[in-house]
Parts: sequence; structure tokens; C-alpha cells
Amino acid sequence: MKTQHSRPNILVVNDDGITAPGIKNLIEVVQEIGNVVVVAPDGPQSGMGHAITIGKPLRFDRVDLYEGVEMYKCSGTPVDCVKLAVNRIFKGKKPDLCVSGINHGLNNSINVIYSGTMSAAVEGAIEEIPSIGFSLDDYAQEADFSHCKKYIKAICEEVLAHGLPPATLLNVNFPNGEHIKGIKICRQANAKWAEEFDERKDPYHRPYYWLTGVFQNNDRGEDTDVWALDNGYASIVPVQFDLTAHHAIPVLNSWSFNV
Amino acid sequence: MKTQHSRPNILVVNDDGITAPGIKNLIEVVQEIGNVVVVAPDGPQSGMGHAITIGKPLRFDRVDLYEGVEMYKCSGTPVDCVKLAVNRIFKGKKPDLCVSGINHGLNNSINVIYSGTMSAAVEGAIEEIPSIGFSLDDYAQEADFSHCKKYIKAICEEVLAHGLPPATLLNVNFPNGEHIKGIKICRQANAKWAEEFDERKDPYHRPYYWLTGVFQNNDRGEDTDVWALDNGYASIVPVQFDLTAHHAIPVLNSWSFNV
Repeated sequence: MKTQHSRPNILVVNDDGITAPGIKNLIEVVQEIGNVVVVAPDGPQSGMGHAITIGKPLRFDRVDLYEGVEMYKCSGTPVDCVKLAVNRIFKGKKPDLCVSGINHGLNNSINVIYSGTMSAAVEGAIEEIPSIGFSLDDYAQEADFSHCKKYIKAICEEVLAHGLPPATLLNVNFPNGEHIKGIKICRQANAKWAEEFDERKDPYHRPYYWLTGVFQNNDRGEDTDVWALDNGYASIVPVQFDLTAHHAIPVLNSWSFNV
Repeated sequence: MKTQHSRPNILVVNDDGITAPGIKNLIEVVQEIGNVVVVAPDGPQSGMGHAITIGKPLRFDRVDLYEGVEMYKCSGTPVDCVKLAVNRIFKGKKPDLCVSGINHGLNNSINVIYSGTMSAAVEGAIEEIPSIGFSLDDYAQEADFSHCKKYIKAICEEVLAHGLPPATLLNVNFPNGEHIKGIKICRQANAKWAEEFDERKDPYHRPYYWLTGVFQNNDRGEDTDVWALDNGYASIVPVQFDLTAHHAIPVLNSWSFNV
């Protein structure tokens, strides 16, 4: 990996695949800040959560999509991409920043758990790299990311200047449309997907099912990411990967297991 | 789904696949407690994390492996299995308990994030079903689960009696070997995998890589799951799916984003 003195080294990853417009927009922003290396899936990996590839081997290859950008496509998941980048491309000299996205579609609220974009950023944080996931409220391939760019640059610069608290990363979501009112620091809204399975029949009369769902938000808090986005703000949720429900430990200690 | 009056309805899932010995042992335990329905992947899905299947359709079929047990194999991930069970098999009348495992191999510490077993239990909790993931410190197909069974029964009975605090689930890990000293309620140890990629060449001289790694625990706390297991105890970590790093919110609010 080539480095220019004093400019930060920035790893870019995503889950929509290396040819997605979202990652192109993200690359354009972080090229203004530092030396960019892209390691991204060779195809769509949405909804892969924190999956890693252990039952089959991985491949990765250099590709040259955008002038002057060191880029690799990888056959694995978004989390695999981060692991490969750290171990095989940066070779132990960790990048100064890991950015993931820009995802085509929101990753607010409970979506943080299903999202390959966010899981890549979580993996970056596990690797002790300051990490940020970016997502836009527009699933379309032709989504317009231009209004997000100055926010992404400002957020990356702030993270590079201050660092992040230990074992945390940022989940940044942008509303669709030209005007963003500003940034709100938020908590993850307590919402979920009510799944629905769309049943069809194949040509051999056997049923198959498409997973679909309806997003249900029952959290009326005005300090949530859902509220911020509904009201025209970009949301930033600090995310942690210590999943311990510390408040539940005394409750469980009061139980007497009848072994 | 058939139900017997007053006995709890129990959903069983795993990530090692429906034919794994671990799930057979888990079924044997919970059959003593309630009416059992099994929905499990049709093949191994270890390391799938919280992946869901959105790019291709799902299939599921009734199978009869064990006498008197209602069982379905599913082409999807462990999380897909829970969603399918709730929506298509229980059809909205949610089970009283969701148990996942018994995993062949530990899911302590950071493994909770990569584990399909634990992600299925997380999905159960998101569905507001009291949920527990069980794992044993033995990766072998022929692992001996017999010493875990009375603990699993006691833990399930306690959860059915008390319920769990809102939006939490349990991550239960068992040491290998005949004697378990008892149960410790723990926090998730602050440990990680240092990945290593095993490079090989295919018959066409192109490189490919197997993801491997070394587990690194730098957490010396005696209140962690790693400590409990190292010292012969079964560990129970209460787990939450609100990933907000609440302590980091004031830090971020002190920043001035230069947009």
C-alpha cells in the first residue's frame, strides 16, 4: 500500500458491492481527506449482518474502477472485506479510519443488526480502527448522494481530530432530499420489522417464499434516530459491540437455578 | 401447530443444521418441558451472524427425524428460521420460549456477534419471545452434551417462571468435560479474533484464502464469561440488541461539526 506522509490512510468498504454508486460517492469525499484503499464485495451483500465466510475459501483481486484509487474486490461478506484489508492489504499497519457505505437505504434503529454496511464498521471498531457507517434514505440505484457529501467530510474530519471513545463506532443516516437541517446525536429507536413471507409457486408447483416486512416504530422518543430522520436531520448513533445487558445481571443473580 | 393445554410452546433452532447432534440433545431436554417445534437450517450456517436472505427466495419443508417432534428444515439462515417460524408456523401466536443450539463450539465473548446460534436467539428476543442460546466448548461432531442437559433444563424452567427483562436474552456457554462447578452470571469478555488468512493456490495457480484466526483475550476480569469457562463454570451473559453506546452521546454532543 502506498502512503503519502501526514495524510491519513482510509479504508473504504460497503455491502452493496464495489460497483455501487454509494461507494463511489464515499470514495470521492474521503479522497479529499486522505490516502484511500477500497476493499468491497464483488456483488451485493445487503442483509448479511456480521456474517463471515468459514465454510468456503475467499478470493480477492485488484480492480481499477476509479483513477488513482487502490481498489480490491472480494468474494466474501462486508466483514470478510475488513478482515482481509487489515491482514492482507494493510498488513498490520492499521488504517487511521474505516468508512462503510454510502448504503442505498437506511440503517437506522434495529437495522444496524441486519446491515452488512454497519457490520463492516463494527468489525473496523473491533479492529480498533475509528469506524463510521453511512446510509441514505433511498434504496434506488440512481439515488442522489450529493447533499450528504459535506456532512460526511465534516464527520470524518471530526473523528480523525478527536478519535472515538474506546469500543464505539458511529452509525450515520441521512434523510433523502436536498436539504438537511443539521446533525442530531441520537439513540437507536426501539423499532422492529414485522416480517411477511410472500408465497409463490415454482414451475414444479413447489412453494417458495420471499422475505419481506413492515417497519414498525413504537418508540415516540425525540432523541431517536427515527425521529431525527423523520424531521429532516442527519442522525448519528454511537454504537457498541459489548452486547452485555449490564442492568440484567443483578436480576439474574437473584434467581436460584434448580440444578 | 398442535398444542397441549398448559404446556409451553417451545421453538428450537440452531446454526449447525437440523441433523447436528447438538440440536438433538437440546430437543431431548425441552421435550420434557413443553410442546416442541423445530425450525432449523438444512445445512451448516455457522458464522452467519445476523444475516437474512433477501436476494433469493426461501424454502422450508416438514421433516420427520425424531419421533413425535414437529420439525422443519429451512434453506435460509438461523435468523430466517426464526422469522419463518413466527410468521408461517406459529402464525402470530408466538412461542413461549425460543432456544438455539446446542452449538458445537463456544459463543462466549465477541463470538456472540459472529454466531448464527446467538443471532437466532437475538431475533427471538426482537420478536419479544424469551430466548436463550446454548453452546458447548467442543467443536467436534461427536461432542458429548450429556453434562449440559440438567443445566439447560434448569435455565429454561427459570426463564419460563420469571420471564426475562425487556429486550434481553441469554447467552449460555458450557465448559467441556463431565463436571460443571455451577453457573456464573457474567459480562461479555473484551476479547477479539486476530485473523490470519491461510493462502493456497488452486489448480489454475490462482490464490485463494481460508479465514482462520487466533482468539485473543486481554480482559483479566473475573466477572467475564471467559473467566467462568476457564474455571469450570457455565457462563450466562444477558445480551441486548440496543447497540447504542449511551455513554458516548455527551462526548459527541460536545463536538462542533464543521459543515
